[in-house]
Amino acid sequence: MQSIVNRVAIGDILRRNAARFPDKVAIIDGGKRITYRELDQLSNQFANYLLSSGYTKGDTILTICMNSWEYVVIYNGIAKAGLIWVPINPGISINEKLYILDQVEAKLIMGDAPLIQNDIETFKKSCQNILAVRGSLGDTNTFLLALEDQSEVEPEVEIEDRDVAQIMFTSGTTGNPKGVMTSHLAVYIASLGNIIESNFQEDEKTLTMMPLFHCAQHTFTVSALHRGATSVVISGFEPEALMKTIEDHQITNMFALPIMYKALLYHPNRPKYDLSSLRRCTYAMAPMDRQTLEKCIHEFKAEFALGTGQTEIYPATMTFRPEEQLRRFGSYWGTSNLINDTAIMDDDGNILEKGQVGEIVHRGPNVMNGYFRNEEETAKSRAFGWHHTGDLGYWDEDGQLVFVDRKKDIIKTGGENVASIKVEGVLLTHKDVANAVAVGLPHERWSEAVTAFVVLNPGSQATEEDIINYCKEHLGGFQVPKSVVILEQLPLTATGKIQKHVLRRQYTNHYQITN
Amino acid sequence: MQSIVNRVAIGDILRRNAARFPDKVAIIDGGKRITYRELDQLSNQFANYLLSSGYTKGDTILTICMNSWEYVVIYNGIAKAGLIWVPINPGISINEKLYILDQVEAKLIMGDAPLIQNDIETFKKSCQNILAVRGSLGDTNTFLLALEDQSEVEPEVEIEDRDVAQIMFTSGTTGNPKGVMTSHLAVYIASLGNIIESNFQEDEKTLTMMPLFHCAQHTFTVSALHRGATSVVISGFEPEALMKTIEDHQITNMFALPIMYKALLYHPNRPKYDLSSLRRCTYAMAPMDRQTLEKCIHEFKAEFALGTGQTEIYPATMTFRPEEQLRRFGSYWGTSNLINDTAIMDDDGNILEKGQVGEIVHRGPNVMNGYFRNEEETAKSRAFGWHHTGDLGYWDEDGQLVFVDRKKDIIKTGGENVASIKVEGVLLTHKDVANAVAVGLPHERWSEAVTAFVVLNPGSQATEEDIINYCKEHLGGFQVPKSVVILEQLPLTATGKIQKHVLRRQYTNHYQITN
Repeated sequence: MQSIVNRVAIGDILRRNAARFPDKVAIIDGGKRITYRELDQLSNQFANYLLSSGYTKGDTILTICMNSWEYVVIYNGIAKAGLIWVPINPGISINEKLYILDQVEAKLIMGDAPLIQNDIETFKKSCQNILAVRGSLGDTNTFLLALEDQSEVEPEVEIEDRDVAQIMFTSGTTGNPKGVMTSHLAVYIASLGNIIESNFQEDEKTLTMMPLFHCAQHTFTVSALHRGATSVVISGFEPEALMKTIEDHQITNMFALPIMYKALLYHPNRPKYDLSSLRRCTYAMAPMDRQTLEKCIHEFKAEFALGTGQTEIYPATMTFRPEEQLRRFGSYWGTSNLINDTAIMDDDGNILEKGQVGEIVHRGPNVMNGYFRNEEETAKSRAFGWHHTGDLGYWDEDGQLVFVDRKKDIIKTGGENVASIKVEGVLLTHKDVANAVAVGLPHERWSEAVTAFVVLNPGSQATEEDIINYCKEHLGGFQVPKSVVILEQLPLTATGKIQKHVLRRQYTNHYQITN
Repeated sequence: MQSIVNRVAIGDILRRNAARFPDKVAIIDGGKRITYRELDQLSNQFANYLLSSGYTKGDTILTICMNSWEYVVIYNGIAKAGLIWVPINPGISINEKLYILDQVEAKLIMGDAPLIQNDIETFKKSCQNILAVRGSLGDTNTFLLALEDQSEVEPEVEIEDRDVAQIMFTSGTTGNPKGVMTSHLAVYIASLGNIIESNFQEDEKTLTMMPLFHCAQHTFTVSALHRGATSVVISGFEPEALMKTIEDHQITNMFALPIMYKALLYHPNRPKYDLSSLRRCTYAMAPMDRQTLEKCIHEFKAEFALGTGQTEIYPATMTFRPEEQLRRFGSYWGTSNLINDTAIMDDDGNILEKGQVGEIVHRGPNVMNGYFRNEEETAKSRAFGWHHTGDLGYWDEDGQLVFVDRKKDIIKTGGENVASIKVEGVLLTHKDVANAVAVGLPHERWSEAVTAFVVLNPGSQATEEDIINYCKEHLGGFQVPKSVVILEQLPLTATGKIQKHVLRRQYTNHYQITN
């Protein structure tokens, strides 16, 4: 058992920095500036509220919030109280929310008033305790009231290195979400690794813009606060508001999606803003096309890096480094971060050589404790003593990792394997295509038929035939979509991932199998 | 229990970097250059030798070596095999060596041939297995032969985060050395903390010059190799050889004692060498006087920082940072590193405020598992849930920590407390004094009498009276030594610490107590 004298715990991070530089600003949210001392004290108050309300070790606290300073206090307060944080995406359906709520038997639901007001009565059937975070809800208690009269002194709670600190549910590009149990130690060491790999400095001004309920932004924010930097919290992406934030706060280090950087790049009002403070821009979830990347690096005069990871192995696990960005193009994930091993493995557990495609597997202290109440999936995820990501990739000649596809997104057509992202890469270079996805749909002759779903740029008159002809110029015959479906929009998760499973389900009879 | 999928283990460090940059040089020792891949493979071979020789979990391997590339392989190989490393200082007496050997029931003794050849028969009474590291010893097996025919593939050994990786014996400025049990996790997280606090870069060229058997150099070398830097290994300090090494290898980052920097600074041949590659110079064990420090920063054009720590809480725990070095002078230890809490505590466990002198206490994942087979001392060391350092200090108005003295080195004289280092600080400013120490010796009237032991500069004719008169000008009456003993040299440990207990014992009757 770990003693408090040498345990590893997430709640220790703020306390240590509060002692090191009490008056330094940790969080800026609109007009509110919170120093490290204040952030630590607020988190202590919230921890004391939770403990004095009777929640005890193993209890789960579910949050349905957008980014705010309160959210930073909440996740730290839960950690300090030794309870389990279950952040959920406000954008998922009420049924998914109830599924998670019931799975973890949540003892308390916290949510921004506008995000939960319509569901309160439904929630109460499973959990009586509700706390409104931003805004108020009739006679429901609020977060700010909860802090009142609570001691600012940190409670001494027994926490073990490997105690579960949080359960994040995977974003559901397939079926029911699975709860990922992450330990205090995993988050703590991941953040130290991030600080080193991103060369995070103490005087950094960082951005908390992507949703804190997702592992990518959470680990970025934890790392910034672990380093002692200042993080500016905003909620949601609006290009001009973001440029103003960068200018106003002299942001040096940010994390966003490729499409967001692209939106800034081509924004007509960009010249009005001074973005020269930017030093490092991390992107994730998707590669950046060559033209955008070159222009970004040139225009923003910042270093760009791609970070990868997943909820199951607390991010980041790999970095496609700044110095490599313009040396090679494609779906590069680069090299392992210093806290992780990375290997390519076949289905029999053999480690593969350079050039051979297989599943990307990892080891490292940031690997999850397991899936919540799902020993079978947990065991599968760590077959052969390695964490299986479900991603396919290979090492290039220089030892840089190339992502091929999600294992389940490989299309098996007429005896050939087609990587959906290869087809998507070509589709996206078509001048009329705004967004695109390729999936395999059941087909009598081909087993699976490569099928494209595209969203056209506004005003475009391109036809299915135009796009198929374009693909024929750039792809091998078996890789060309048998059919192109033009849609107004693609189904997306709240974090912007395309939900292929929705399309697969909806279009399962697209080729009208006759038998 | 930790699975290999997410454990924290020292042996993982080299494997990960070998995968990241296999052909990068990790270690340079004389003409030998060892890449990360080779260093990892050599360590695997040694681990396989140990396991194939029948050593099993919990077994202790004792080493008596000076710095060498072999020593780096040895500590990594022992870690990879899941065994316990017990490095000992070759400079301690044979009786102390036997004491440690018997305490830990060493299963294997490894030593450089010249360092152990005279003691082999004595050692064999306690431990039959001897392996010569550098050089050979008749029919004794050698390290290089041991590696032959061993697989370069890492053995898969069950290791837990908190398994004891090493037992270092404290250097013995008092009584019998105590064995400090340090976990894999403590060393691992300490090194991540060091990388961040020292802003260690991957392209750094570092120095392994101070002895690897001591925690300070070991943690520095582990950190350098964890970061993926190159470390140049030398054994022992000779100013001109060091300057040549810095020039030849373009050393950027080094760790040495203040007297060593001083020796470079005033060396007549310094202008012959190009030392401009130096970026950061860490010093430890003692403060630097104002004049030397100013001149060092000015002449070496590098940043200087003081790191502190102790074997019991794997270093570093605090840093007196570069930007503070010329702002305040004295025995400053600065601020906590990000992985540690630091507080000042009275004897009743109360945390003290700024300005109040008390014991320096810490918390952090780098705190030892405990003293080997000494539960009583372990419990005392973590009274009130904090690790007690045995050092006294206070926070200044700006939150910077000032070291006052070792708790046991405070001299209690005539009802007053005198910090020995205050007296020493004055003695060292006397133009004729090369080295000095102050201790309390039994005295009929004063209970303890402040007593100085000094070494004079070559050729100096200063007398006891001169020095006492000088002290009267700079110290309060009760702080002035009652007696000054001029010596040819002071008793030192192998790491350069003055052994006050030797003087106390030898001069215990100095004032000839008559009762």
